[in-house]
Amino acid sequence: VNVASRLQDAQVTVVGLGLMGGSLAAALTARHACRRVVGVARREETVAQAMTMGIVHQGTCHLDAGVRDADVVVLATPVRAIIELIGQIGPLLPPGCLLTDVGSTKDAVAQAMQALPPHVQPVGGHPMCGKETAGLSAAEPSLYEGATYVLTPLTRTADVALALARQLTQAVGARPLLLDASRHDALVAAISHLPYLLAAGLVATAEGLADEMAWQVAASGFRDTTRLAASDETMMLDILLTNRTAVRQTLARFQAQLADLTRLLETGDAIGLRAAMTAAAQRRRRLFP
Amino acid sequence: VNVASRLQDAQVTVVGLGLMGGSLAAALTARHACRRVVGVARREETVAQAMTMGIVHQGTCHLDAGVRDADVVVLATPVRAIIELIGQIGPLLPPGCLLTDVGSTKDAVAQAMQALPPHVQPVGGHPMCGKETAGLSAAEPSLYEGATYVLTPLTRTADVALALARQLTQAVGARPLLLDASRHDALVAAISHLPYLLAAGLVATAEGLADEMAWQVAASGFRDTTRLAASDETMMLDILLTNRTAVRQTLARFQAQLADLTRLLETGDAIGLRAAMTAAAQRRRRLFP
Repeated sequence: VNVASRLQDAQVTVVGLGLMGGSLAAALTARHACRRVVGVARREETVAQAMTMGIVHQGTCHLDAGVRDADVVVLATPVRAIIELIGQIGPLLPPGCLLTDVGSTKDAVAQAMQALPPHVQPVGGHPMCGKETAGLSAAEPSLYEGATYVLTPLTRTADVALALARQLTQAVGARPLLLDASRHDALVAAISHLPYLLAAGLVATAEGLADEMAWQVAASGFRDTTRLAASDETMMLDILLTNRTAVRQTLARFQAQLADLTRLLETGDAIGLRAAMTAAAQRRRRLFP
Repeated sequence: VNVASRLQDAQVTVVGLGLMGGSLAAALTARHACRRVVGVARREETVAQAMTMGIVHQGTCHLDAGVRDADVVVLATPVRAIIELIGQIGPLLPPGCLLTDVGSTKDAVAQAMQALPPHVQPVGGHPMCGKETAGLSAAEPSLYEGATYVLTPLTRTADVALALARQLTQAVGARPLLLDASRHDALVAAISHLPYLLAAGLVATAEGLADEMAWQVAASGFRDTTRLAASDETMMLDILLTNRTAVRQTLARFQAQLADLTRLLETGDAIGLRAAMTAAAQRRRRLFP
């Protein structure tokens, strides 16, 4: 297969110039990691803004023009749009083109990638970074630095294409981590999607108090625990809807954990309650010392 | 009643030199907010450490000696120890002494304070600040700065005693907020104790995956949402056990919220799900812009 072997010589086209795509383009440009960065956005203003920010060498609203000469195409829209794009983009891509994405769920993406024409080299991707502020204005070249960047190759993916995807992750300062798409989805359901749902449920519960004083006594603990509730809704909705099975499983497991804690509290079982609290505290302290 | 009218002229005795008591003593000393700061701790080493840190003018392991000449006594141990101390300390306090505390639940404290001898002036207190690291070594004079500091006076509390308690909160840089003890407990159950339980349950759920890769993909979202799980267990156990009714109520409300979100997800109701997500996101963004 005719895959570029060095990212340095490649044209990278980023489709979707929001927080994730914009930051990826910015990192590649700032680090001179590839020959050329092309940005594709739906709106002319976004293209103009990316040019003004100097994070792409060229920008366009036309997908076909943007990807025509690409060695690497990175889809950086919300997940459901990524899946739609995968269904359309195949015929537009040159032979040997690496097609990857930054979507937060990988099983549905992998299924869509499986149906791509054989001249395309697909590798799913999920950088474990972000922030609550969406959009190009919030993009920054350092966003990916130090982050774990999950790659989910398909059985059809050539080694050279996976190697190029690895180069891409490292070029923006991240650490590649190879995972099976289904395993990835089960992990992020518990590590990322469940925390979001808890944060949203927590805000709703506090709101349900209907006591304005609630916000007066909300300190850093409430602030941190609810941070994810402010995540971009469009992005999160796509994530939840494309990872329903795994999210449902992790929700059921969480509810069982909470029921255990509730029972210990109701029965006043101080010893059992302390044991559960200590186990969680010790694991958390080991994780983030 | 013979209550000191100016904090400036008062001796403040802090009982319990952990994170909260140590930081309070440090703030009072650093800001020259009162005539003298006396520290009472169980262990000689803690007293010596407080003296070395220069955060108390005098320290002792003997409660009676420490409070004998106090104008203000601040109980700064875990809540169940505060309640025990209130039961013993009355006869040791000089007439007109303000007795307050920094415990995280207030109804049980108020009930104990109600039984104090009439020469003592009780005012419950709860500064809405802290951090996960417990102990005197983690104490810092800036801990209370900018924090809301809830005061829960009793009907028996004289105006002059409440005024002195207000001075104390402002002297360490906090903003006093008067609340009824029961209302306080209902608010913090939702705003503080529920977030702790969710964080602990979330850590347990992730642990339950039994997949070491889980910790590799844990990014800032998981870190922030679980931060409270690392809270001091002894402190949190006392809080939960002295606020069981309100915590149980808020847990039930939260579980109903989570069940709503789960149902919307299971039925694939994208419109309903988005509406719930948007409401939470907007509230969170208004709260912490």
